[in-house]
Amino acid sequence: MAMPQSANAFKFDLVANAGAARAGVFVTPHGPVETPAFMPVGTLATVKALDPDDLVQMGASMILANAYHLHLRPGDDVVREMGGLHRFMRWDRPILTDSGGFQVFSLAQLRTINEDGVEFQSHIDGSRRFFTPEVVMQIERNLGADVIMQFDHVIPGQSDEPTARDASERSIRWLARCLAEVQRLEITQPLEDKTPQALFPIVQGGIHSGLRREAARAIADMHDWPGFGIGGLSVGEEKPAMYEMLEVVDDALPKTHPRYLMGVGFPEDLIEAMRRGVDLFDCVAPTRMGRNGAVFTRDGRLNIKRAEFRTDPRPLDADCDCAACSRFSRAYIRHLFVSDEILGLRLLSLHNVHFLLSLARQARQAIKTGDLETWARDWLSRYQTTSPLAV
Amino acid sequence: MAMPQSANAFKFDLVANAGAARAGVFVTPHGPVETPAFMPVGTLATVKALDPDDLVQMGASMILANAYHLHLRPGDDVVREMGGLHRFMRWDRPILTDSGGFQVFSLAQLRTINEDGVEFQSHIDGSRRFFTPEVVMQIERNLGADVIMQFDHVIPGQSDEPTARDASERSIRWLARCLAEVQRLEITQPLEDKTPQALFPIVQGGIHSGLRREAARAIADMHDWPGFGIGGLSVGEEKPAMYEMLEVVDDALPKTHPRYLMGVGFPEDLIEAMRRGVDLFDCVAPTRMGRNGAVFTRDGRLNIKRAEFRTDPRPLDADCDCAACSRFSRAYIRHLFVSDEILGLRLLSLHNVHFLLSLARQARQAIKTGDLETWARDWLSRYQTTSPLAV
Repeated sequence: MAMPQSANAFKFDLVANAGAARAGVFVTPHGPVETPAFMPVGTLATVKALDPDDLVQMGASMILANAYHLHLRPGDDVVREMGGLHRFMRWDRPILTDSGGFQVFSLAQLRTINEDGVEFQSHIDGSRRFFTPEVVMQIERNLGADVIMQFDHVIPGQSDEPTARDASERSIRWLARCLAEVQRLEITQPLEDKTPQALFPIVQGGIHSGLRREAARAIADMHDWPGFGIGGLSVGEEKPAMYEMLEVVDDALPKTHPRYLMGVGFPEDLIEAMRRGVDLFDCVAPTRMGRNGAVFTRDGRLNIKRAEFRTDPRPLDADCDCAACSRFSRAYIRHLFVSDEILGLRLLSLHNVHFLLSLARQARQAIKTGDLETWARDWLSRYQTTSPLAV
Repeated sequence: MAMPQSANAFKFDLVANAGAARAGVFVTPHGPVETPAFMPVGTLATVKALDPDDLVQMGASMILANAYHLHLRPGDDVVREMGGLHRFMRWDRPILTDSGGFQVFSLAQLRTINEDGVEFQSHIDGSRRFFTPEVVMQIERNLGADVIMQFDHVIPGQSDEPTARDASERSIRWLARCLAEVQRLEITQPLEDKTPQALFPIVQGGIHSGLRREAARAIADMHDWPGFGIGGLSVGEEKPAMYEMLEVVDDALPKTHPRYLMGVGFPEDLIEAMRRGVDLFDCVAPTRMGRNGAVFTRDGRLNIKRAEFRTDPRPLDADCDCAACSRFSRAYIRHLFVSDEILGLRLLSLHNVHFLLSLARQARQAIKTGDLETWARDWLSRYQTTSPLAV
């Protein structure tokens, strides 16, 4: 069951450990990703409000796009015709595509799930669609990302054990179908530039330790995967439950491969998950919150629209060297927001994404120097206790 | 009646002539402006959807901001407290502020005009405001632009002669009050950095040649102005009437100073006005149209949302080297628009502004080489006759 094209194209080199935390380099056909890493989310082949040049400038290495959204608009066939995602959106570094399992669960209407797949209505125009593992692998092949996620069955975060078992076991059966289809497509539909794709499985199991452990082991036994996704977390469950699941999965998965915690997250979540062996993250929070005026700073979160910032000459975050903080005052950015100016959306998205990229870089450094625990404690203490308006 | 601070800070050097057209250099305290020049409009201290770095990269030299809008949001007092417009918006090249005469005419509600000034309701919150020449000079001083426009009485483009005469003569009386107030403020309220400001008068007179000639002469006789505004055009009158007015004003104004045609415009208008001796332009069209999906190209205007562009791999304009055309396909930009992605707004705004800046640079070159008429005829012929979808 080897994936011959990808055998040499993907590898993960561990550089350092600190407890369960790891610093590594995930090598892909479009270049290396130093881990831990935060992947900005470009749902529709654009990281909202940002230019690809902004992302390069702030040192983003890998970004995410979404199979569900791109299948609906502009169509994965269009993206393939335009030379694949990298060419279409002018991003020549690594890309990962999510499979749509989460979007079918969270966005689509009138969802019907059976063993074959999921029938649903598009959230754009209500058109009926049917996603199976095979259909989704074709979509992700058309998009042509470096890493493609399996199609999985996502459930609410607090689902009971029988519901979670049903979804987890179905996801594992779907994984086998995804793998078979990827192998078939590699032969029947080679990509124009022959760039191999890495299929990542997704460990499900809700908030049930036993299910998580079983899933991780079943998946690891199925195939020599280039990396592992951890899904179905940060979807409504309590934080301690998420942390517990991460510890279980860390134990059960091989230490030799990258782990990607899907849809997480906030700065504090990144730190807690890195401490539990996670290497890759993605989340819409920095851009979505940025468009709403929320700003991550070393001293906690602030809302730029507040009247206190009307004549505040300071940058958003005195410790930040992003393209917003190195140029503009809080007063100016507040004015942009109050006046509904587009530049405001861009500057806060830029700052927040830079903040998470920088956080992951700092953590990597702390892992390498062996100071992760001290660094994490100090970082969280300042972030969680300082009142941002007081600084 | 000299303006001592500005005596050396502003000058206009004519480099070449071609008929009535001129190539020059308008020197300001924040640097030179090579004319003819298009000034991108940053109404609220931001050129909509663009970053100041975008504007520098595309070679914009002078931009415009608006006294009416900035008085309402964030308040000209706030801008002054933040160090003036240049510092507030991080633009260290020249800025011109419009006086609000046009906005009071076009945006405000329940407007009452008398000899003292204009009482109106804010279009934001309905609050009552009273603009006089003196109030507006204070606002423009607080903003701290290089060039400040007089407060004038703007009327609809097709107003009859008595109405146009009344407004033009009032504007000239208000000009004298603006000048006196600027001279008073220079002494009583020196700007922190002592940077002088140049007050530009505005020639009004509707579409009535006699009024335009009278206004131009009365204004030129009043003071040795550093430059002249031409207002009340492109506000609903026919194009031939606008061109005729430009010829009358060109004859009546001294040839030695820059002329700024306010609120114009479209590529064809720029060319026709440059042929009639205009040096400076501004217009919201490139950014406003860009946000609606309209694109200027050498072969005419196109609408990026059209289905024909769904898989079109070509740039917006094959002759363009802007940051959109040098990277992205029509197919990608269409996708961004269809999906309401912010990057689409930025890319089309960027392209359209670049298009007008580049047009003015090409015209300048043609004036210098003496080929303006041939260049203009060829440019307009291709722009007005080619079907953009056929190219």
